[in-house]
Amino acid sequence: MGSLPSETLALEMTETHLNVGDSRAGAGAGAETAQWLLNSPDPPTLWEEIVGAVKENAIPRSCTEAPTAKKKKKKSTSSSSGKQNIFKTAVSLLQKALPILSLSRNYKASKFRNDLMAGLTLASLSIPQSIGYANLAKLDPQFGLYTSAVPPLIYALMGSSREIAIGPVAVVSLLLSSMLQEIQDPVSDPVAYRRLVFTVTFFAGTFQAAFGLLRLGFLVDFLSHAAIVGFMAGAAILIGLQQMKGLLAISNFTTKTDLVSVLESVVKSVHQPWYPLNIVLGCSFLIFLLVARFIGRRKKKLFWVSAIAPLISVILSTLIVFLSRADKHGVKIVKQVKEGLNPISIHQLQFNSPTVGIAAKVGLIASIIALTEALAVGRSFASIKGYNLDGNKEMIAMGLMNITGSLTSCYLATGSFSRTAVNFSAGCESVMSNIVMAVTVMVMLQFFTRFLYFTPMAILASIILSALPGLIDINEALHIWKVDKLDFLACLGAFLGVLFHSVEFGLIVAVGISFAKILLISIRPATEEVGRLPRSDIFCNMKQFPMAMKTQGISIIRINSGLLCFANASFIKERIMRLVEADQDNDDDVEETTKEQPKQVVVDMCNVMNIDTSGIIALEELHKKLLLNDIRLTIACPKWEVIHKLKKTNFVERIEGRIFLSVGEAVDSCLENASKLPSLVTKVIVN
Amino acid sequence: MGSLPSETLALEMTETHLNVGDSRAGAGAGAETAQWLLNSPDPPTLWEEIVGAVKENAIPRSCTEAPTAKKKKKKSTSSSSGKQNIFKTAVSLLQKALPILSLSRNYKASKFRNDLMAGLTLASLSIPQSIGYANLAKLDPQFGLYTSAVPPLIYALMGSSREIAIGPVAVVSLLLSSMLQEIQDPVSDPVAYRRLVFTVTFFAGTFQAAFGLLRLGFLVDFLSHAAIVGFMAGAAILIGLQQMKGLLAISNFTTKTDLVSVLESVVKSVHQPWYPLNIVLGCSFLIFLLVARFIGRRKKKLFWVSAIAPLISVILSTLIVFLSRADKHGVKIVKQVKEGLNPISIHQLQFNSPTVGIAAKVGLIASIIALTEALAVGRSFASIKGYNLDGNKEMIAMGLMNITGSLTSCYLATGSFSRTAVNFSAGCESVMSNIVMAVTVMVMLQFFTRFLYFTPMAILASIILSALPGLIDINEALHIWKVDKLDFLACLGAFLGVLFHSVEFGLIVAVGISFAKILLISIRPATEEVGRLPRSDIFCNMKQFPMAMKTQGISIIRINSGLLCFANASFIKERIMRLVEADQDNDDDVEETTKEQPKQVVVDMCNVMNIDTSGIIALEELHKKLLLNDIRLTIACPKWEVIHKLKKTNFVERIEGRIFLSVGEAVDSCLENASKLPSLVTKVIVN
Repeated sequence: MGSLPSETLALEMTETHLNVGDSRAGAGAGAETAQWLLNSPDPPTLWEEIVGAVKENAIPRSCTEAPTAKKKKKKSTSSSSGKQNIFKTAVSLLQKALPILSLSRNYKASKFRNDLMAGLTLASLSIPQSIGYANLAKLDPQFGLYTSAVPPLIYALMGSSREIAIGPVAVVSLLLSSMLQEIQDPVSDPVAYRRLVFTVTFFAGTFQAAFGLLRLGFLVDFLSHAAIVGFMAGAAILIGLQQMKGLLAISNFTTKTDLVSVLESVVKSVHQPWYPLNIVLGCSFLIFLLVARFIGRRKKKLFWVSAIAPLISVILSTLIVFLSRADKHGVKIVKQVKEGLNPISIHQLQFNSPTVGIAAKVGLIASIIALTEALAVGRSFASIKGYNLDGNKEMIAMGLMNITGSLTSCYLATGSFSRTAVNFSAGCESVMSNIVMAVTVMVMLQFFTRFLYFTPMAILASIILSALPGLIDINEALHIWKVDKLDFLACLGAFLGVLFHSVEFGLIVAVGISFAKILLISIRPATEEVGRLPRSDIFCNMKQFPMAMKTQGISIIRINSGLLCFANASFIKERIMRLVEADQDNDDDVEETTKEQPKQVVVDMCNVMNIDTSGIIALEELHKKLLLNDIRLTIACPKWEVIHKLKKTNFVERIEGRIFLSVGEAVDSCLENASKLPSLVTKVIVN
Repeated sequence: MGSLPSETLALEMTETHLNVGDSRAGAGAGAETAQWLLNSPDPPTLWEEIVGAVKENAIPRSCTEAPTAKKKKKKSTSSSSGKQNIFKTAVSLLQKALPILSLSRNYKASKFRNDLMAGLTLASLSIPQSIGYANLAKLDPQFGLYTSAVPPLIYALMGSSREIAIGPVAVVSLLLSSMLQEIQDPVSDPVAYRRLVFTVTFFAGTFQAAFGLLRLGFLVDFLSHAAIVGFMAGAAILIGLQQMKGLLAISNFTTKTDLVSVLESVVKSVHQPWYPLNIVLGCSFLIFLLVARFIGRRKKKLFWVSAIAPLISVILSTLIVFLSRADKHGVKIVKQVKEGLNPISIHQLQFNSPTVGIAAKVGLIASIIALTEALAVGRSFASIKGYNLDGNKEMIAMGLMNITGSLTSCYLATGSFSRTAVNFSAGCESVMSNIVMAVTVMVMLQFFTRFLYFTPMAILASIILSALPGLIDINEALHIWKVDKLDFLACLGAFLGVLFHSVEFGLIVAVGISFAKILLISIRPATEEVGRLPRSDIFCNMKQFPMAMKTQGISIIRINSGLLCFANASFIKERIMRLVEADQDNDDDVEETTKEQPKQVVVDMCNVMNIDTSGIIALEELHKKLLLNDIRLTIACPKWEVIHKLKKTNFVERIEGRIFLSVGEAVDSCLENASKLPSLVTKVIVN
């Protein structure tokens, strides 16, 4: 690299360069690297890229890693026989399909003790929550318990997360009821509604499994972190408002889920008969639950207080109602909960009904929401424990668990934020805690459902309400606001969309804003003037680095946009022209004497990942316009795709090969040109 | 810069660096620049950027340039009095608003002679084309002539393009008739249809003027070059098919414009009575016109042959029909063309009808198509003649000309591709040629419309057909295919959409594909391994530059995506992990002895223009995962927005400040670290 720190040495440097006597005109020190650039091989074609992406995506990571693993094995134990190898491979493949098999190797009694404790704690939280969420999904209580029984068992066989707690969750329950009760009224025809829910669950499971098999895990990424934060908060508020029905024992509650309709319902209920006992019971236990939650949050060792509190509330309140017979004084109770394990529901799926299209649509939306929650929670705990979670494998596990669920009277299950945290805090070691939990729920279903008869509805509402603060993450929202205003807009859009319109609308708004943001940033027509940092060869934004210095007679402009395309090319061209004009004017003001030096422009394209035909046309127009003003254009640092297209369209010849691999080399070449080209200089003087 | 060409010197270099005795841990030579980076001021906030963009966009360029101009003037003639200055400013402002005023200064008789000849040539082409396009727009012939009379005069007052030929054009005529005849049948109620057309023209003019005043010129850029090529070709074929009606004298022609419907109509017409005379007349003149066009194309000096051919065809064919009374043998003729200049049509605009919403929508689409054509043609000729065309000013001129047009019985006028080329070839010097043309058309309207009575419809069809090849640019389509496959997809989408569905649909497809392409490129999760070029400090893609060299023990990975955001962050994280693993495995294979050296990863973020909260989370997860594998992460070359957000989220502290301004400095620091950190080394050995 021949460039020197400061521009005061420019003349000296130019002389040195001239002495080099390079054969290539206007090349200087960068001649060799520029040749490398111009002669670089063609980039992969669109077709090659697509094939590559499909291949990479389609072949599971474990397969691509296999050769390396084999190689390593060979090194260590090259004497092992072939038969043994085949057996080992089969075992390892089976273990990959059913991760639980690999558990047996080093699963000890002490670990099981931990899992047993965690599973029982989980069950104490799951049972009341499941009943409450079933109520939110407009299903009878036993369906919540069914959903906490079969899906966790299936997941335990196939899933690879150790902490995730499977079962019904609040957001999905709300989503299902809000989207399905418009098609089928759950009050007038609960059987038909239930059939619809099972069908949706089947579709959701099928979609999840398909996403996993087709390795479309990236679809879940299309809900940005910010959108999820906003969506969850909005859904939590809606869920909370829905609980007003149970807490205030309102009879004519709206079936809509948006804020305005629900508030109207609550206000209207003022004129209806009040049930003070109901409210007192609900609120006092809500306070108890919130205090327990607060204690559990403050002291990590007392987490079990918050975990066990819901079960205690259920037992206590049921006893109170049973002893006082408060149900005769307006306290609404759960009443009959059907006894027995999950009944088979294959015959209840309906694929011939006219609603099958809508069921598939709802299934698709619900599957994505459920996966988003499950993967978010699974990944965050996997990252704490330091192991890797394969998103596509998880999706297959979730899919199969929900398909099985839909055949055994379960509705959509997924990983729950709050219960997973409890499972983790309770010291779970493996998926065994989910099995313990499921077995406990099954025992409950088989023998103890009659004890739920007198459980007041208000307690279920309190339990759901006490779990909601975990879904509203104000700190994270503030953090997003601080870091990225447009991200916050997506967050706010999702929040308000869910709150004031509907769950689906909130999602669409969030995804729309997120993608609009990508577009906006990718095509914003930004340019910046760059200058050389003192004592270095690095060229930087002059505004970001006030110490960066200009080079006399050369305007160096960087295109600050990832694409030079139809949407921003003519804008960027205009901007460069303006910057150049401003620069030339400034130069004129500063030193009238240097006016005879020909002006040059270096356009740094290092940020431009790709260019389209409109972009190339804009570059050609820029070159023409600059030529008309006797200004030479030099291109620095074009990317692979860009240089390929510039070569193809003969732009390289048009600017006489003034294309360099780095800004430094481009500037050196410009300085050399300045002293070499008297013809242009004369022309300027004559003008 | 302390880095040296080849890695064989790495040890020597590291020692040198150690001797520098820099106080900052793990910093080396890049310490100073890294500090500059970390202490750089905050980037402009979203709000500042919006304000800046609005300001820049809202204030016309001439105003921002004014101070410089004034300054220069001061230098040269500082003795001029204040009053004179004010007068001069007023004159220059008026000249800017009405560019025609600046014409008077150096407009000589010789120039006028050129303009007169060009204007007359233009008129000879305009008159038959206008009648044909009016027919295409389902209007009576005189409306085409009206549109060639008033709008060119208004444009001549305000527009700044010197070559553009204003009047009705084929694509806009087709667009109007295809979108409007579904709302109002032009055959059963021509008066109502006409009122609708004028209203649409008024809306289109208003939108155009508003775009110009609000400086929304960039909206026109949203139709990419490729999309326009495809759209124009599709529209040209549709227009050609529409001419079958006139050429074959089909009576029951479909009102739909898509390929299938039109071909069905043509096939069905086989069973209808044939008019061989009509076809013979049309085809023979079509051959004449195409031969003339071919001659005009081959010899630039004979361009007038193709320019004058349409008028000759009209005169000849009219004479033939008049003399032979062929109209009695099935040759369809134009019949009555209303005599007299444009009647006022203010009272025909309808803003209270129920169709006003649709009229506004059609006006919006038509205004954008018309502006796209006009600006494309205006800019390309301005660039040939070497002057600048202000898009926003042109839009205002177009808008006012169409508003005036809608009040004087004109339909939507814009700049025509074919006639502008003729105007240019005929040697026009200024907008005066448009005035000459308009006056000629007016004379025609006032005195000679009766001569058009016997003009056969087949000739008008031939004239339109002969102008269509100019709209189908197969070479450009091939060029697009060669340069950019995805661009070609947009081109093809527009073409097929127009051909098989409708004009609007083709546009939507083209815009959709274009934006999907931007999204795809911006968020594609691409990464590349980079290596140091020999004898330089430049780090390049190892695949593009096979001579680039790896640095032992350090994986340098560049994120090849403009954004690190929710849609690609986890993918990129996975890819980096894979690359690092592959790299470490390779290193293991190559040199078992160097295993004790700690592995390090440099992530070059120079392409990442922006990062969102999901992106930062992904970086944090990457850092954690690498740490678990005893690999150190160093970030190189973060952009302004990125470093700002990394500082805000404390990521900088989390990776202990290992952020550098260039890859070279990051690698130097890594090499220094490698020798400095025995603790990590021991850990690796123990493992």
